[in-house]
Amino acid sequence: MIEVEVKFRIECGDSVEEKLKSLGFSYVESKVEEDLYFNSSTRDFRKSDEALRLRRDGSGVKLTYKGKKIDSETKTREEITVGVDDFESAKELLQKLGFYPVREVRKKRKIYEYGKIVACVDEVEGLGCFIELEIDLDSMYADRVEEAKRELMKIAEEIGVKKSITKSYLEMIEGL
Amino acid sequence: MIEVEVKFRIECGDSVEEKLKSLGFSYVESKVEEDLYFNSSTRDFRKSDEALRLRRDGSGVKLTYKGKKIDSETKTREEITVGVDDFESAKELLQKLGFYPVREVRKKRKIYEYGKIVACVDEVEGLGCFIELEIDLDSMYADRVEEAKRELMKIAEEIGVKKSITKSYLEMIEGL
Repeated sequence: MIEVEVKFRIECGDSVEEKLKSLGFSYVESKVEEDLYFNSSTRDFRKSDEALRLRRDGSGVKLTYKGKKIDSETKTREEITVGVDDFESAKELLQKLGFYPVREVRKKRKIYEYGKIVACVDEVEGLGCFIELEIDLDSMYADRVEEAKRELMKIAEEIGVKKSITKSYLEMIEGL
Repeated sequence: MIEVEVKFRIECGDSVEEKLKSLGFSYVESKVEEDLYFNSSTRDFRKSDEALRLRRDGSGVKLTYKGKKIDSETKTREEITVGVDDFESAKELLQKLGFYPVREVRKKRKIYEYGKIVACVDEVEGLGCFIELEIDLDSMYADRVEEAKRELMKIAEEIGVKKSITKSYLEMIEGL
């Protein structure tokens, strides 16, 4: 799957959610997400621009691999996610395979949807508030990345957010 | 978790199941298990005596790491298992992390239990029939490996199987 994503800093408690609703977005759910990021003992993910993340929220645990970003303006990248049944066992298994935990990122996330577009309004511990706009494309539609990007940028303009951030929360927390 | 395990070759269609029942074992279930083994592009698991396996059976998908064997007479080793929600995504994710599929092992497995002892009567494609006797110890009881081993060997004697095999099915199929 290819995750086409743009991210913007917003003021916490901003009217962005009202704007989303006025554009037709529907509220889906709120979660607290605890993300544990790993690096590899044989390949530095900070250099290869990859990410390996174990995410725990109220509904379960997911393991996600993210490939390097394939676009200079957005956070667009390949993403593979697998649901796992236990956080601690998955962490232990990854450590046996040569991956080690580097950083935990915790956030409150409110999710909105409009058609195939997902909007996440995030309050990230230690970083502040952000909005992420995302379209997930099946890998067979890789040629539609530009189209999806334009669609997201149009929404961003309508919401009134500017200066897309290409860094991940992990990179921001790590000061990279 | 530490998996204390002994394995013996048996004749297919052997009376071993009757013997298990006469010793008090109860039949639990039968499954077809499809195991896909991976090797690492940075650490040869054949040399390090580790294993990484994605198993699919009727009830779901599991990812298992096995450490090197810690006993010369048995297949005793550390084992970490995580349930995952999709075989193909897990396979793809592992490949992105530098692991590559080396071999598929398919078998019919009949499972019996007696207290904490699990007996698996296996018919392995291309290899023939085997019985595995197993006790899973929480890692905190690592000092009880010898005791568990003696218990399994006693059952093996009562069933009448001899010559414990320390090779895994993967190693046997690979001719290692």
